[in-house]
Amino acid sequence: MSILAHTDTIVALATPTGSGAIAVIRLSGPEALTIVNGVFNGKDLTQQASHTIHFGTIRDEDNKILDEVLVSLFIAPHSYTKENVVEVSTHGSKYIVESIIKLFLRKGARAARAGEFTLRAFLNGGMDLSQAEAVADLIASNSAASHQVAMQQMRGGFSNELKALREQLIHFASMIELELDFSEEDVEFANRDQLKTLVLQINKVLQKLILSFEQGNVLKNGVPVVIAGKPNVGKSTLLNALLNEERAIVSDIAGTTRDSIEDEIIIEGITFRFIDTAGIRDTEDLIEAEGVARTREKMKQARLIIYLVDPQQDDVEEVSIQVADLLLLQIPFVLLVNKKDILTPEALSTYTPLNPVFISAKSKEGVEELKQELLNQINLRHINIDDVMVTNIRHVEALGKTQAALDKVLYGIDNPITSDFLAIDIRQALHHLGSITGQVSSDDLLENIFSRFCIGK
Amino acid sequence: MSILAHTDTIVALATPTGSGAIAVIRLSGPEALTIVNGVFNGKDLTQQASHTIHFGTIRDEDNKILDEVLVSLFIAPHSYTKENVVEVSTHGSKYIVESIIKLFLRKGARAARAGEFTLRAFLNGGMDLSQAEAVADLIASNSAASHQVAMQQMRGGFSNELKALREQLIHFASMIELELDFSEEDVEFANRDQLKTLVLQINKVLQKLILSFEQGNVLKNGVPVVIAGKPNVGKSTLLNALLNEERAIVSDIAGTTRDSIEDEIIIEGITFRFIDTAGIRDTEDLIEAEGVARTREKMKQARLIIYLVDPQQDDVEEVSIQVADLLLLQIPFVLLVNKKDILTPEALSTYTPLNPVFISAKSKEGVEELKQELLNQINLRHINIDDVMVTNIRHVEALGKTQAALDKVLYGIDNPITSDFLAIDIRQALHHLGSITGQVSSDDLLENIFSRFCIGK
Repeated sequence: MSILAHTDTIVALATPTGSGAIAVIRLSGPEALTIVNGVFNGKDLTQQASHTIHFGTIRDEDNKILDEVLVSLFIAPHSYTKENVVEVSTHGSKYIVESIIKLFLRKGARAARAGEFTLRAFLNGGMDLSQAEAVADLIASNSAASHQVAMQQMRGGFSNELKALREQLIHFASMIELELDFSEEDVEFANRDQLKTLVLQINKVLQKLILSFEQGNVLKNGVPVVIAGKPNVGKSTLLNALLNEERAIVSDIAGTTRDSIEDEIIIEGITFRFIDTAGIRDTEDLIEAEGVARTREKMKQARLIIYLVDPQQDDVEEVSIQVADLLLLQIPFVLLVNKKDILTPEALSTYTPLNPVFISAKSKEGVEELKQELLNQINLRHINIDDVMVTNIRHVEALGKTQAALDKVLYGIDNPITSDFLAIDIRQALHHLGSITGQVSSDDLLENIFSRFCIGK
Repeated sequence: MSILAHTDTIVALATPTGSGAIAVIRLSGPEALTIVNGVFNGKDLTQQASHTIHFGTIRDEDNKILDEVLVSLFIAPHSYTKENVVEVSTHGSKYIVESIIKLFLRKGARAARAGEFTLRAFLNGGMDLSQAEAVADLIASNSAASHQVAMQQMRGGFSNELKALREQLIHFASMIELELDFSEEDVEFANRDQLKTLVLQINKVLQKLILSFEQGNVLKNGVPVVIAGKPNVGKSTLLNALLNEERAIVSDIAGTTRDSIEDEIIIEGITFRFIDTAGIRDTEDLIEAEGVARTREKMKQARLIIYLVDPQQDDVEEVSIQVADLLLLQIPFVLLVNKKDILTPEALSTYTPLNPVFISAKSKEGVEELKQELLNQINLRHINIDDVMVTNIRHVEALGKTQAALDKVLYGIDNPITSDFLAIDIRQALHHLGSITGQVSSDDLLENIFSRFCIGK
């Protein structure tokens, strides 16, 4: 059955499984009200107003009370899915929840698939596709920044801006297609100068949105940070100091850290994903060598590098050479000089020209300064988090494809290309633009998007 | 501060923690409405009717949207706690839930303690103590039987019966205390025959309730079953066959199972808690010896014993002697003859006089027959689960103490005892009877009872 068929009534637990005071079972569809009413002992639910709550008992076929519940009614179209929605608030017992859901299934409901409530909200026009996708991001959000980005997108975000531009483009597409019908008469319904102006305007917006992706993605998924440095300079100890936990295995034997260990901290609402790596050095050990190769690979993926040096191992000249190497990667980096607790201010001062942060990974001196420096380096501090930002890889890909199609349109306007090819290129752009908000969509696409949701949403 | 003080407004997450479509944050108290209304962007909640639902946004002090929510209103006294209750249904993100609860705390709410909503329901007369205790049982219920018993108690159970009898007893107590005021005149306001009849009647009810405890307890907590037998007859394999999981360590070396491993299955709504034990035999090994002693102890606590024999180890005569030993324990038992898959029907038929169940723990033949025999043995199948049953150890203790006090009253009526002593004994009985439903209660008792609840209930 197509995922687009939504004439039946679905049911799912909407709250997390586990022990709690209450659990909420949600139904949506044409039979939601009658199914619940058929097993509910209390007022006649079919006679009640939308957005009202009713106390009563749920009884099974043997008239056995399964629970005392509160039933919330949302009458179509005034609901999340735009269908009749009933929420049954039960005592938070796994046994009760299972019994009641099974009862609803016997009475004609179907177990909802992952994301099916939100899918129906989309199919019934309650939200566009990019908003629906933001619902999943919102639920998964775990920092102030990722929450803010998801919330903004769910509440409209760039959808409205795109929709307006798309409307105008559709107008031109129709005009040009009209020209095709009168092709023998050589008329021009679509003003080429106006079309060009519009396309350039759309391209400007697309460019802004595509550029916002890096920032938006960082806010949504966190800043990937690599801690690099020679073996045994204290990289694992530093990671532990940052995470305040003994996650990585700390050892005095050079080259202990072979596998990359990921973990994250949130500084002022922004997530930093730390990637602990094997020491960087020439090595004879095969496994080690592989670890080092992987570190170099990771460093290229990083948005930020922390380069840790042990002033007892390397002097300033050596460190300068290492820093010069790092600069070639063109990734923001923080030079971190360890063992602040052991060395004298005089010994450390020789490093000052390299503009480092002094730290003791062991005693945790300087960790706060490092955190502030991390925030400075990523330069996100002064980003207006209220700006529209693209965070979804699917969206940024569609934006890129739209841009490519529009570039062809621009070429077509300036060159002797027939209207039919111009029309095809505009349709192509419209297609990609519409796929973001779901004005153009396919079963496969929807299946793929909504299967990532949790059940009950 | 006393747990009884409840003039402030409490807040807690009412749904389980974890990822889900929605989460429900619950507030109760005089300020519940104004606290939520102060951060809610939508209709003025203070002007809305009870049992209505309102859509809007929750915003923090910086006017940043924390979430789009549905707010459910329950205006005092039409709520669970009999106070103003507001339930805020948010997207199921840990970040959102924490942010909103913290906002409510800043706005004057206090984090609720475990069970505090139900405590307030009790303190405000929404339910008596035994009903409140049943709420926790209901949430913890994991089988049809335990659910049914908890549901029945939450809906009144024996409370009403006890309350009526207590009323009558209070009447006699007052009469007798009145006599004390007129002690010089030798009047008798309280008819001793009627009092005696009442006390006997109460004792009969108490007796019935106390006797129901064993059954009620079994339904609530499950039937404790010991699997006994000589070493290496296949006890662990049998337990695994019943649990369908490889929980216990199965080994061919005699005496491997040293620790008791508990696990349970549910057969036709009734929970059986299996207690796997060390093999029963004379042993030189000290640890083994202790294990055997513990098995004997466990066997005495069991409600049912499964005695497993390996017909290849012991012949019928030996088994008969073992069965005779078991009969002395006066605990229902099932004789189980293993290795049905290996032995011929002829070899097995010699055991038939002992009325065993034949099984193969390894191939799982006969497991269904065993389950049916377990149900038969505990004789709970034909219990009317709708009968009033006591399941709470606190209740049964109070019932016992009430009975003891009433026995003194009976003695007092039949013997030349002065009215003041009679009055004391009746008051004693009233005290214990009242402690069940909470008509008599103390801070300590309540603290103890409600601290076992989950937060948010």
